[in-house]
Amino acid sequence: MNKKGLLIVVSGPSGAGKGTICKEVLERRDDIFVSTSATTREPRNGEIEGVNYFFISREEFERKIAEEEFIEYAEVYKNLYGTPKETVLDKLNQGENILLEIDIQGALQVKKRYPEGVFIFILPPSMAELKSRIIGRGSETPESLERRFSSAFEEIEFVNQYDYYIINDQVKRAADLMESIIDAERCKVIEDIEEIVTMFKEEV
Amino acid sequence: MNKKGLLIVVSGPSGAGKGTICKEVLERRDDIFVSTSATTREPRNGEIEGVNYFFISREEFERKIAEEEFIEYAEVYKNLYGTPKETVLDKLNQGENILLEIDIQGALQVKKRYPEGVFIFILPPSMAELKSRIIGRGSETPESLERRFSSAFEEIEFVNQYDYYIINDQVKRAADLMESIIDAERCKVIEDIEEIVTMFKEEV
Repeated sequence: MNKKGLLIVVSGPSGAGKGTICKEVLERRDDIFVSTSATTREPRNGEIEGVNYFFISREEFERKIAEEEFIEYAEVYKNLYGTPKETVLDKLNQGENILLEIDIQGALQVKKRYPEGVFIFILPPSMAELKSRIIGRGSETPESLERRFSSAFEEIEFVNQYDYYIINDQVKRAADLMESIIDAERCKVIEDIEEIVTMFKEEV
Repeated sequence: MNKKGLLIVVSGPSGAGKGTICKEVLERRDDIFVSTSATTREPRNGEIEGVNYFFISREEFERKIAEEEFIEYAEVYKNLYGTPKETVLDKLNQGENILLEIDIQGALQVKKRYPEGVFIFILPPSMAELKSRIIGRGSETPESLERRFSSAFEEIEFVNQYDYYIINDQVKRAADLMESIIDAERCKVIEDIEEIVTMFKEEV
């Protein structure tokens, strides 16, 4: 029996720590994979085509948008970034679990196109902590800090579009919870259960 | 914020090992409790009122059935057994997680009265293994073995009434999965999320 993989979509406001948690989970598990995104931005030093990104032209990117070849895409600082749909669906069908760490707009696009995904929202332990984490990153002007903070404030409302939330008070604990969610989702009774029951009965 | 507890309902065919898994999970966790059942059967040596069971008369039990005071009940070998509804709901409202290890008929009654429960079905690793576990218990006639086995066979069909299934190939692994399901369910975005978001925003 080839059980379909899970599409795990992780978002959260800037400073909530989603990147750190995803990295930790990916290090722990050999049954969860990331998907390589396509982008129109120039490769940076050392970036490898097909590993870090698929580097494509804006024309090609826009053609792919028109042909609905992305499960989600976004424009960030004049560059386009997108997750190729076919690659992701193929891997899921082969039983691979795919982790997408994307922003809320992207997650909502995925939800529309693939509602059976597992949508996880990472929350900071408190707004004060979020603020100090954003400040701790440095290299921000007071205005951009204020902008980041108020956008985090608005983003938190979107948690009710997600299936699960994790309060990131400690990375280890938050990663444990993300693993629990993934393991629990694999135990859900869905259409594959008929196959399991049949398998049991044929055995006799 | 006082988050409501989970009502965790565990069933599975005889020989699937649900008792062993529940025992293991209860030993590991101090945030999961069992509920004391009421029964009309006579107390056995050493059984304590209110700990092992609430021992009540058949008249009282039947009055409680009529007044819908049980979240589920069943008659087994001329004795009635039931789970008092009010006690369970009170504990859930206080934030306690309650584990009910009950048969399928009981679980379906709970599902009707408390659909927000978490319904977990324990499956044996294989029908052959189930058969050998039932035989291994001894003290059965060939006829009662055959009866037990064919009833397990029928019971497995009910898995699709449950939210989750766990294949009990190893007790440790099955208990890990049950813990994951419980932890994941605690992360679900439900009505309490509004409270969390408000809490976050008030803080600022």
